[in-house]
Amino acid sequence: MMDSFQKNLLNYGRKAIFYPISTQENPNIVMKTKLILSIFFGVLLWSCSQNTENQEVKTTPTKQADFALAIHGGAGTILKENMTPEQDAAYRAKLKEALDAGYAVLESGCTALDAVVSAVMVMEDSPLFNAGKGAVFTNEGKNEMDAAIMNGIDRNAGAVAGLTKVKNPITAARAVMENSPHVFMTGAGAEQFAEEQNLEFVSPDYFYTDFRFEQLEKIRETEKTELDHSSLLEMELGDPFFKDRKFGTVGAVALDKNGNIAAATSTGGMTNKRYGRVGDVPIIGAGTYADNETCAVSATGHGEYFIRNVVGHEIASLIRYGRKSLSEAADEVVMKQLVEMGGSGGIISIDRNGNIAMPFNSEGMYRGYRKAGEEAKTFIYKDEN
Amino acid sequence: MMDSFQKNLLNYGRKAIFYPISTQENPNIVMKTKLILSIFFGVLLWSCSQNTENQEVKTTPTKQADFALAIHGGAGTILKENMTPEQDAAYRAKLKEALDAGYAVLESGCTALDAVVSAVMVMEDSPLFNAGKGAVFTNEGKNEMDAAIMNGIDRNAGAVAGLTKVKNPITAARAVMENSPHVFMTGAGAEQFAEEQNLEFVSPDYFYTDFRFEQLEKIRETEKTELDHSSLLEMELGDPFFKDRKFGTVGAVALDKNGNIAAATSTGGMTNKRYGRVGDVPIIGAGTYADNETCAVSATGHGEYFIRNVVGHEIASLIRYGRKSLSEAADEVVMKQLVEMGGSGGIISIDRNGNIAMPFNSEGMYRGYRKAGEEAKTFIYKDEN
Repeated sequence: MMDSFQKNLLNYGRKAIFYPISTQENPNIVMKTKLILSIFFGVLLWSCSQNTENQEVKTTPTKQADFALAIHGGAGTILKENMTPEQDAAYRAKLKEALDAGYAVLESGCTALDAVVSAVMVMEDSPLFNAGKGAVFTNEGKNEMDAAIMNGIDRNAGAVAGLTKVKNPITAARAVMENSPHVFMTGAGAEQFAEEQNLEFVSPDYFYTDFRFEQLEKIRETEKTELDHSSLLEMELGDPFFKDRKFGTVGAVALDKNGNIAAATSTGGMTNKRYGRVGDVPIIGAGTYADNETCAVSATGHGEYFIRNVVGHEIASLIRYGRKSLSEAADEVVMKQLVEMGGSGGIISIDRNGNIAMPFNSEGMYRGYRKAGEEAKTFIYKDEN
Repeated sequence: MMDSFQKNLLNYGRKAIFYPISTQENPNIVMKTKLILSIFFGVLLWSCSQNTENQEVKTTPTKQADFALAIHGGAGTILKENMTPEQDAAYRAKLKEALDAGYAVLESGCTALDAVVSAVMVMEDSPLFNAGKGAVFTNEGKNEMDAAIMNGIDRNAGAVAGLTKVKNPITAARAVMENSPHVFMTGAGAEQFAEEQNLEFVSPDYFYTDFRFEQLEKIRETEKTELDHSSLLEMELGDPFFKDRKFGTVGAVALDKNGNIAAATSTGGMTNKRYGRVGDVPIIGAGTYADNETCAVSATGHGEYFIRNVVGHEIASLIRYGRKSLSEAADEVVMKQLVEMGGSGGIISIDRNGNIAMPFNSEGMYRGYRKAGEEAKTFIYKDEN
């Protein structure tokens, strides 16, 4: 375990430095941010490498595993013809930044858990993705966020739903896992816990972005005029930000040098959602799952289908009891089971041998991976490999 | 599908008749209640047998299955020496009443879904169990209830968390499944949906019971005086109502004449719970799961462990991919996996061949089953079979 000084450093780093870096910011701020980020990673790496020394590893790795991580930034009707070169480049740059953040953590010998949190925080802080800053709006014009994390060593897990004021929902999920006897906290109660944990709070305005609010207004208008399904589809295809109404979510899976794996997922849910609807993200076994014995999974897609298929645990079960490889199991669930039921979306997954599978049955999925000694690779469309 | 007249009858029946029948009530009220119940079941049976005619059965039963159902009313430190003969008799009588209610539904040809709802409502309406009337209190002195339901035919599911005013939370879970595109709704939003569905609402006072409030006060006192673990255990053993602080939950699984299975679970959660804590009950795959191809499961126990083990879906996976029988799979998860992790509790389960397994690793579990042509059998302690 970390001593309190290290914990404070880590908390300080989390609070003070991971604010969103918009691509429109002026060069001075970008320079300053890069400097602060470098200091932060220095502190983080020193801090969490101490942390791993006493980490209990319950199962012995079969070999010294190479570290690696994979991330996603949501799946949906993402078509090349609907993206401008600038949008394409902005997404790839942010995916790379998230991959590099997680990679640095792993390279220093820190845990897979630390790495997935770092990678997810970069995407939560970016307005490009439907998580944290840039989360979609509910029917009431609020941003309500869900997140979950799971550790493959001991299958400990933490999840939160309906947060409105915690800057990085994934840090709240981690606090639930590490500092409470519970797994799942919701609404105002979850936020009270996060406050007691000294996590960084922001005004609900922080999460506001013009284009997400415009999405909400368009969808409200659509519902009012009762456009038929094809008109809605046309609207989705015509608007690169409208398309992922149901799907935008971010997530990461990682394998660390000790052969342990972890998964983390964070989302703003579904635009115009009502009735306190919660999707698959905070459902352990559905949108988020990790077990050293099988794999770590983070999902993105039409959450209701992912819950009913218990997607993460189904992939793990196909490996454990169905004797499938990670890639076979992930394909079976995403490209067959979900398709048969009509559930659109995808997953990223990793196992203890560093195998990575990232199948999706939608038009595209913002995704990428980085393996030990290699550069980050990022993908958006279907035909990229 | 039912026509609206039948739906109204069913709703009317649900609203008007399933109020709690205390064992202290006077004979006139009991007589009247029995009469009304008979009329209600008449209406229900006529109504839901119409309903099944158009029910889509996606998989063909391997044989004409005998119908059956099993129920639980919570697991925990339930020891014979701590129960008075009156308490023992009251629990068995209420378990029998729930079994008979579900049985009547099945016998008439209605669906497994109808049967599990009927059985669970009887227990929700009884102050003996930690669900609906008699739910435990949160740290803030409220009753916050969770429930879930899943249909084995199509793996459709519905779940709710944090309800405070819906008389029968299981009816809200069913409404989410049948009348919304969502699976999981939480808090005030879920209650707004329930209101729009015309479900019966009650004043939060309805859920109040003296002994549950005394439990809360005792636990608060315990926390204040920081009693050590053995003192807490002593207190639990000495108080028959204190013992199931973490465990009381009700649930049902059923197999209908068409060879379809379903599961339903309902709970008041954990006494003195804080932070909007949600347990395994509304987590599809953990506390509630049903798939015609494998089994239907409803769990009761220390919810956090049941979430991390994805208990319901793990049992199903052991059957589907691990080639275990229902009984072997249920034992493997409850008596081995959960025990290794330290997760106390139990489950009830049924498959399409009418096999029933009800393992628990705690001292006792209120439970019972009734098979076609047989009388209801009820059990409380470990040594009963």
